[in-house]
Amino acid sequence: MQVHKAHGTGNDFVVVPDRDGSVALTAAQVAALCDRRTGLGADGMLRLAPAEEGIEHGGSSDDHVFMDYRNADGSPAEMCGNGVRVVARHLHDHGWTSDTELRIGTRAGTRRAWLQLDVDDRVVAVTVDLGPPAFAGPDLPPVGADGHAAVDAGGTTTRVLPVSMGNPHAVVACDDPATAPVTTLGPAIETSSAFPHGTNVEFVHVLDATHVDLRVWERGVGETRACGTGVCGVVAALAARGRVATATDVTVTVPGGTLLVRWDGGPDDPVLLTGPAEEVGSVRLAPGWLARAGVATAAGSPA
Amino acid sequence: MQVHKAHGTGNDFVVVPDRDGSVALTAAQVAALCDRRTGLGADGMLRLAPAEEGIEHGGSSDDHVFMDYRNADGSPAEMCGNGVRVVARHLHDHGWTSDTELRIGTRAGTRRAWLQLDVDDRVVAVTVDLGPPAFAGPDLPPVGADGHAAVDAGGTTTRVLPVSMGNPHAVVACDDPATAPVTTLGPAIETSSAFPHGTNVEFVHVLDATHVDLRVWERGVGETRACGTGVCGVVAALAARGRVATATDVTVTVPGGTLLVRWDGGPDDPVLLTGPAEEVGSVRLAPGWLARAGVATAAGSPA
Repeated sequence: MQVHKAHGTGNDFVVVPDRDGSVALTAAQVAALCDRRTGLGADGMLRLAPAEEGIEHGGSSDDHVFMDYRNADGSPAEMCGNGVRVVARHLHDHGWTSDTELRIGTRAGTRRAWLQLDVDDRVVAVTVDLGPPAFAGPDLPPVGADGHAAVDAGGTTTRVLPVSMGNPHAVVACDDPATAPVTTLGPAIETSSAFPHGTNVEFVHVLDATHVDLRVWERGVGETRACGTGVCGVVAALAARGRVATATDVTVTVPGGTLLVRWDGGPDDPVLLTGPAEEVGSVRLAPGWLARAGVATAAGSPA
Repeated sequence: MQVHKAHGTGNDFVVVPDRDGSVALTAAQVAALCDRRTGLGADGMLRLAPAEEGIEHGGSSDDHVFMDYRNADGSPAEMCGNGVRVVARHLHDHGWTSDTELRIGTRAGTRRAWLQLDVDDRVVAVTVDLGPPAFAGPDLPPVGADGHAAVDAGGTTTRVLPVSMGNPHAVVACDDPATAPVTTLGPAIETSSAFPHGTNVEFVHVLDATHVDLRVWERGVGETRACGTGVCGVVAALAARGRVATATDVTVTVPGGTLLVRWDGGPDDPVLLTGPAEEVGSVRLAPGWLARAGVATAAGSPA
């Protein structure tokens, strides 16, 4: 069986091509593939399945592919902006299509993606439509006239900009992300009662209207090198308060690299995320490995 | 370029075959391969080089291979019991030799290894000769008549059995490794003045004369799932005090799995370590990936 290791700004995946929908991996097998010491190691798995599998999730048989995204423990997951970039590049590099405007089915519906190619037809960057932001909703705390919510967490009160990109985010201003209390205040805000289903937390320094620097604490994960929905939520929340520009790319620096985010400012305007996607290599699994991995041990490693 | 991902009891490696000695990887390229998110991810790299490269390290041109072992940061490393098992299995599985008694050159000299095969010629386990133990030396503290040293570390005094397997170990008795203070007392003993060059620390519960349960804190690394020299040092140190048997396999359970260790009790008798080695898969690196990886960024990831 041939799989691939790939990443977008350090968010890494095992990519499993499955054009005919015949690959049925158990949760234990996915967890074994994602184990960082006894498997290939990844944040999650992306199975490239026939578009028809996405119809029940609001997708279409006209989609180029259905992205069956699983967490590293094997459980299904809805959406991942970095994952969509990786999938889009894979479809181009491995000859699934010559289109540069792609429709990728996910468990949160179809996402559009655009490939930016160089003169040698190599993918330089991928832009993904992550849908419009929301500044109110059942996952978010109420805000005051200034758009902020006061969140009691970690023995202090923090002013945050709440925003949803399908998942909740709390945007926290700071002078320097490098020294911000990401690993202490992050989990405190994540689990505060202000966010009924928990939240991702971004610690953000605005350099100017088109440059932002941040670190992110992901709900249920911890600090990561990049979070696609996070950087989109940050730019939308800041743009809604006039802190960064609309209708142009805002450069966002995260520990894993640099991303571009554009929001045109209208309530129905989608947030567009542009960034790299990189394949490390193609992997032929050792004979019998996947079958043995189906029997999980207590440590989650292959029996 | 074709490489491999493999592990021994959770100690994982990128294996780079180099039969003709033509692969010259920079430290930045090794670090990029070993990066767990933007590369393949591993504790280290094992380049399988011509035996002649080992002569300057006390090896022989009659060795089956020279194991050029590098840490995950790209720096050269001397020896690794888990790595020797992985190399021995690779030579068999990939047709380098049909021998089952192997001589593997390392920077610490030649190590002998024996393959245990099943009826289908598959490797079940690999035994490695890790050389004789030493209970005194410049890396170890002096001991009393009971063979123990009293080590002041972490605000308390701990009785340890010092032993060297080429690298120093401090064997600490405990009732239950699962609840032992591995991550607090481990680093305290590692950096105590009793061990002038630092030490690995094993927290050990002796179940009976042929069964031992332990967790290990590795010098310069932290807690790991298994440490080949560590389990050998533990069994030799305990056997020298009559706590476990000599001249038979002692079963050692570590978080990464189960290993067998045999020491016949004489000062020149080598310690023999038997355990699994597993290949996850063969990897064809994406075109141009290695060349791009040669230019390291601040984060150690490919430029």
